[in-house]
Amino acid sequence: MEESDIAFVNELDKDSIETYDQKTLKTNIPGFDALFVNGGLPAGSAVMIAGGPGTGKSTFCRQICYNRISEGKRCMYVSFEENKEKIMKSMKTFGWDIKEYIDNGQFLIQIINPLDVLRMKFGSLGGSGSATELSSKIKPLVIPKDFHPDVIVVDSLSAIIAASITKEKNYRIYLQQLFSFFEETGATSLLIAETDPLPTRFSDSGIEEFLADGIIVLYNVQKQQGRVNAIEVLKMRYGQHIKKIVQMNITNTGIVVNPEQPVEIQF
Amino acid sequence: MEESDIAFVNELDKDSIETYDQKTLKTNIPGFDALFVNGGLPAGSAVMIAGGPGTGKSTFCRQICYNRISEGKRCMYVSFEENKEKIMKSMKTFGWDIKEYIDNGQFLIQIINPLDVLRMKFGSLGGSGSATELSSKIKPLVIPKDFHPDVIVVDSLSAIIAASITKEKNYRIYLQQLFSFFEETGATSLLIAETDPLPTRFSDSGIEEFLADGIIVLYNVQKQQGRVNAIEVLKMRYGQHIKKIVQMNITNTGIVVNPEQPVEIQF
Amino acid sequence: MEESDIAFVNELDKDSIETYDQKTLKTNIPGFDALFVNGGLPAGSAVMIAGGPGTGKSTFCRQICYNRISEGKRCMYVSFEENKEKIMKSMKTFGWDIKEYIDNGQFLIQIINPLDVLRMKFGSLGGSGSATELSSKIKPLVIPKDFHPDVIVVDSLSAIIAASITKEKNYRIYLQQLFSFFEETGATSLLIAETDPLPTRFSDSGIEEFLADGIIVLYNVQKQQGRVNAIEVLKMRYGQHIKKIVQMNITNTGIVVNPEQPVEIQF
Amino acid sequence: MEESDIAFVNELDKDSIETYDQKTLKTNIPGFDALFVNGGLPAGSAVMIAGGPGTGKSTFCRQICYNRISEGKRCMYVSFEENKEKIMKSMKTFGWDIKEYIDNGQFLIQIINPLDVLRMKFGSLGGSGSATELSSKIKPLVIPKDFHPDVIVVDSLSAIIAASITKEKNYRIYLQQLFSFFEETGATSLLIAETDPLPTRFSDSGIEEFLADGIIVLYNVQKQQGRVNAIEVLKMRYGQHIKKIVQMNITNTGIVVNPEQPVEIQF
Amino acid sequence: MEESDIAFVNELDKDSIETYDQKTLKTNIPGFDALFVNGGLPAGSAVMIAGGPGTGKSTFCRQICYNRISEGKRCMYVSFEENKEKIMKSMKTFGWDIKEYIDNGQFLIQIINPLDVLRMKFGSLGGSGSATELSSKIKPLVIPKDFHPDVIVVDSLSAIIAASITKEKNYRIYLQQLFSFFEETGATSLLIAETDPLPTRFSDSGIEEFLADGIIVLYNVQKQQGRVNAIEVLKMRYGQHIKKIVQMNITNTGIVVNPEQPVEIQF
Amino acid sequence: MEESDIAFVNELDKDSIETYDQKTLKTNIPGFDALFVNGGLPAGSAVMIAGGPGTGKSTFCRQICYNRISEGKRCMYVSFEENKEKIMKSMKTFGWDIKEYIDNGQFLIQIINPLDVLRMKFGSLGGSGSATELSSKIKPLVIPKDFHPDVIVVDSLSAIIAASITKEKNYRIYLQQLFSFFEETGATSLLIAETDPLPTRFSDSGIEEFLADGIIVLYNVQKQQGRVNAIEVLKMRYGQHIKKIVQMNITNTGIVVNPEQPVEIQF
Repeated sequence: MEESDIAFVNELDKDSIETYDQKTLKTNIPGFDALFVNGGLPAGSAVMIAGGPGTGKSTFCRQICYNRISEGKRCMYVSFEENKEKIMKSMKTFGWDIKEYIDNGQFLIQIINPLDVLRMKFGSLGGSGSATELSSKIKPLVIPKDFHPDVIVVDSLSAIIAASITKEKNYRIYLQQLFSFFEETGATSLLIAETDPLPTRFSDSGIEEFLADGIIVLYNVQKQQGRVNAIEVLKMRYGQHIKKIVQMNITNTGIVVNPEQPVEIQF
Repeated sequence: MEESDIAFVNELDKDSIETYDQKTLKTNIPGFDALFVNGGLPAGSAVMIAGGPGTGKSTFCRQICYNRISEGKRCMYVSFEENKEKIMKSMKTFGWDIKEYIDNGQFLIQIINPLDVLRMKFGSLGGSGSATELSSKIKPLVIPKDFHPDVIVVDSLSAIIAASITKEKNYRIYLQQLFSFFEETGATSLLIAETDPLPTRFSDSGIEEFLADGIIVLYNVQKQQGRVNAIEVLKMRYGQHIKKIVQMNITNTGIVVNPEQPVEIQF
Repeated sequence: MEESDIAFVNELDKDSIETYDQKTLKTNIPGFDALFVNGGLPAGSAVMIAGGPGTGKSTFCRQICYNRISEGKRCMYVSFEENKEKIMKSMKTFGWDIKEYIDNGQFLIQIINPLDVLRMKFGSLGGSGSATELSSKIKPLVIPKDFHPDVIVVDSLSAIIAASITKEKNYRIYLQQLFSFFEETGATSLLIAETDPLPTRFSDSGIEEFLADGIIVLYNVQKQQGRVNAIEVLKMRYGQHIKKIVQMNITNTGIVVNPEQPVEIQF
Repeated sequence: MEESDIAFVNELDKDSIETYDQKTLKTNIPGFDALFVNGGLPAGSAVMIAGGPGTGKSTFCRQICYNRISEGKRCMYVSFEENKEKIMKSMKTFGWDIKEYIDNGQFLIQIINPLDVLRMKFGSLGGSGSATELSSKIKPLVIPKDFHPDVIVVDSLSAIIAASITKEKNYRIYLQQLFSFFEETGATSLLIAETDPLPTRFSDSGIEEFLADGIIVLYNVQKQQGRVNAIEVLKMRYGQHIKKIVQMNITNTGIVVNPEQPVEIQF
Repeated sequence: MEESDIAFVNELDKDSIETYDQKTLKTNIPGFDALFVNGGLPAGSAVMIAGGPGTGKSTFCRQICYNRISEGKRCMYVSFEENKEKIMKSMKTFGWDIKEYIDNGQFLIQIINPLDVLRMKFGSLGGSGSATELSSKIKPLVIPKDFHPDVIVVDSLSAIIAASITKEKNYRIYLQQLFSFFEETGATSLLIAETDPLPTRFSDSGIEEFLADGIIVLYNVQKQQGRVNAIEVLKMRYGQHIKKIVQMNITNTGIVVNPEQPVEIQF
Repeated sequence: MEESDIAFVNELDKDSIETYDQKTLKTNIPGFDALFVNGGLPAGSAVMIAGGPGTGKSTFCRQICYNRISEGKRCMYVSFEENKEKIMKSMKTFGWDIKEYIDNGQFLIQIINPLDVLRMKFGSLGGSGSATELSSKIKPLVIPKDFHPDVIVVDSLSAIIAASITKEKNYRIYLQQLFSFFEETGATSLLIAETDPLPTRFSDSGIEEFLADGIIVLYNVQKQQGRVNAIEVLKMRYGQHIKKIVQMNITNTGIVVNPEQPVEIQF
């Protein structure tokens, strides 16, 4: 067998590899960054924010956005279901007024109508085009030219998959393309994943959790004293972290994590 | 890539956004409004009222309607299964005489025959029409001109979905359109959802609970002393609430919630 | 949008609505009627009698029939599986001799051969006929002219559905038509439903239990002292009832319910 | 609607109905008949003998056959999987020598090759023939003319269904025809049903257990002292019985039931 | 109906039936034969050797082969996945040198490439050929002429089914043909079945365990002191046996069963 | 039947079989090799490295690669999802600088774009070509000529199967071909398998775990003190091993196994 047989090895990866130190994204959610040895999320990662209904997934991501844009960064929030007004109203209830950041272009809320995505033509996989051509067609969202977001939130991953991917035999491969897309943006991606209340799987297919760089799970569990919110870093590539489920409060001014207060959950 | 590529971003949302204070809808169900920091449901929300058979879902919604119309508001009750006479009879057993409100037009009971819905032609998604044209076709119920209800009850969400949506690959997108429809009415929507007796999912697809703004769960659980009714606010966007399962009694005069009496449930 | 758009609202319901007092059907099964505040089943309801094999569902319904016809009422028993002779024999073992009531026309046992139902042509839903025409075709059983039964037993609901309804996308709508049919007879319908021994759902589809006005569950559970029979009113529209699982004995003379003896069941 | 519309009511059942006393079939399996108030199985019933692998189902049925033919009765054993030699060998290990009864025609072992059943043409349901014509085609086994067996064993029901019934929408109706066939033979039918080791359902479809007149469950459960065999009468129409799971031993001379020794099973 | 109608009764079984004493196959696995009253497996049976990954199924069967060929018997080992070299290497690690027995023809290892089986044409069931013709085509493996093995091992039953049987409506009938094939060889067949670690079913279809004459289950369970191997005779036609799960060690020189040491397993 | 009928027996295996001593591959992961009697993995085996998200599967395999190439061996790492830069970065965080080994050709990281695999044409099974021709087409990855790796890591087995195998009736046979491919390379293959967090099955099909020579399971379980990592050798052909779940720490310098510290897991 000849070396020349390796037609499908990606030659582009052979060039210019250099190791670099892992950059860290501080979320400034009280108590949350302390869960990581490096004091924050590994920058540039694609992280699933997973949880059942009412666990605070959207609030968690919006708080990170607010904290970042307050420091002058750019963020992009992609919503499939809530409109811009409702998102603004919801953030206002925590005291996060984002109107000025929308006006000055720091915060971009992109409302996507799933009907529009349906109408787009995706290149059919396995066709004659080159890999580059193909991947350019599998872009479920468009980042404006010269807008380089620090954080991209997708609310929700479940919705973006429903709108852009047919459940068929090539499902995993489409997903790999989707995660590659987020990776290539250079931004830290927070991908909201809708799960059962006490999830042991984090997606219908059981595949997304292996493709993601990290998984943060939000819980809303019944205790004798009532429902309790909790948070856990279940997986994080490129960053060491505390391996505990800890308490989380959703207060008037946003989420507060108590990294010292473990929460026991019976799965 | 050019800014002009963002064809499918909904441009309509860019205009005239203004934040506003969250309005509250007082249900006046004894003990229930005390579960919310603001003293009632966030007005304008789409709230699932979920529970197994015999948990009091219909009674809960009818009591809210009766309380609102007693205060001069307008309500609309959409029923797929019980006829108007049975609904009136059922409400009468709690002492709620609605005849006068039906006559003066405050209370509109709409009985929908699923066969009629089947006969309607829905625009096929992904067709050539504009998004506006499409969404105008996905209206499973019709609100009379100049009738602006304060509360809309759909009894049941399961029935409306069965009658109007085919379970196919675009299922989630149809659901998003349906929830958008309710949102655009401006009314608070109470959507009755039929579940297993101890639900951890609130719909067959597991999608509806993420699209809804809120989920209120009604329980009917076996305790040593017999069956006990209970209620829980599991999720509520735009409104903080007590996170406990609390006791609920279905009395001769309607539902009474005891916000101080927690109920333990083994899921 | 014009008022005239509401084509599919059932106009017939707008006429002549009058509230009336709930009538009660006394079963005269010892101890059973005491489970209801009004001392019996709400007359005119469609009630599922649900339970696993060997729980006494048929006996329960036959005892009610016998008690009613003994008081001069008319009853109709629709059987898909046992023939008339076996039903008579089975009732005889409890001392219920029904021969005279069959002869004088008070008790009508209708044996339906599922093969015959299969041969009938049902109107296809969504066709061009009016709703009235359609529903007239979905009559899985025929009540003789001028025979107005007090109670109709269907043994079993599972069988009637298997014989008359194709499991397809319009399944729920067919079921709604079926329940409407029973409601329109004016009789109290007892619909035997075959379930798992410790049911939390009461039908394959999970739909029937929401369409029915009431659910009575029969249990046959293993206790340390052996199998124990028990009964529970799980749901009953238009009638308040005791919310407990209570003991039930199948004696030589029929079923005896002990409303004071709760039975604990581990689901 | 006219009386003449009731075309599909089985007219044959209207004639010559007479009640009669329930006859009893004594099995003479030590301890087993004592489980019934009448001292044996209701004669003429179709009884499922259900259990997991290794629970003694075949032995139970063969012992009844041996006991009956020893008393001069005729029995028929239909086997789909074991051949006649193996059945004789197996019975010999318990001391039951059936050679003379085969020779004198009292005991008929019918080995059915499923391939042969497959080759038979069944009348298609819903066709133009009369019900009588149809049912005459759905005869999966043939009883020789003038051979009137006291007991028919089908080893197994699962096999006969696999060979003669296609799993399709009319599955329940085919099953009803099959059970009618057994009922019409006049014999007591013992239908071996293969289940999970601790069954709560007794067939794949969950239908057979409702069509059968009786269900006898055999257990083979792990206890601290090892595996224990047990037996239970779960359901029996036309006959009162003890409602307990009791111990059963498979000895050198056949099955011995201990009706006084309850066995606790954790389902 | 005429006697002549019984076309599909297997006439061949009517001839020359004679009872005989059950022969016993001693495995000589230390401690194992003591589980049987007759001191070994019933010769000529088709026995499933079932267990999860890492439970010692292959080792168990190879040890029996080695013990038999050491005593001058012939054995045949059919492997779908491991090649002859690996099987020899694996047996060598227990001190079982089989080279001489392969050379002298006592031990036949047959490696089957599933691709070759796929290429064979099977007679289509239900065709016009006679039963004899059909069954002669369903031979997934070929035993050389004049080679009469004492033991046949199939490693694995799962593999042979995957290669030769399409999962379709006639699945059970194909399986019955397959088990008939083994029975007709006259050898004792050990059929390795891949299961879940704590199996309650022993095949995907739940059918094989009822067709097999015996089931031996191997366990590999987590105990406080670590993983423990155990063995159980769950079912054995034509042979009485101890009904306990007992300890089993996989030592340097092969499997040793401790029939006196019960192992408790929480299913 | 003639000997010549055995057309599908693989004749190639008949030649030149010689037994040999089992070679051992020392991983040099602290504490891990002590789990094996021979002090390491059986060389040349195909071993599944199974576990849920965040259990350290990739780290485990990369550490073995780093240890081997540090000793002058060659390794090949096949990745379907992470690119070469991210793999290098990830290994650097543990202090494993692989740049020099990539440059000198000892460590080959092969990034496979699943889209490219999709485009390859596989020979259709059951076609006319010989077995040799067919198997040469089912090569999902290509090892450069004259590069003889000591260890091959496939990250992940799930991804390689998704890209190269259609889930169809011949699924098991394709898998057998895939495992044969790895065996024929002569290298020890580490095949990463994505599972549920507490797996009892190690693949969707439940087949891979039986085809693999070994299974190593990584756990990430919730304990009162937080999440704990653990490791277990569940199955290993050709090598005896300790049968316990033991603690494993993921430290700054890589994985450390504590073979003396058992971890109890409630499945």
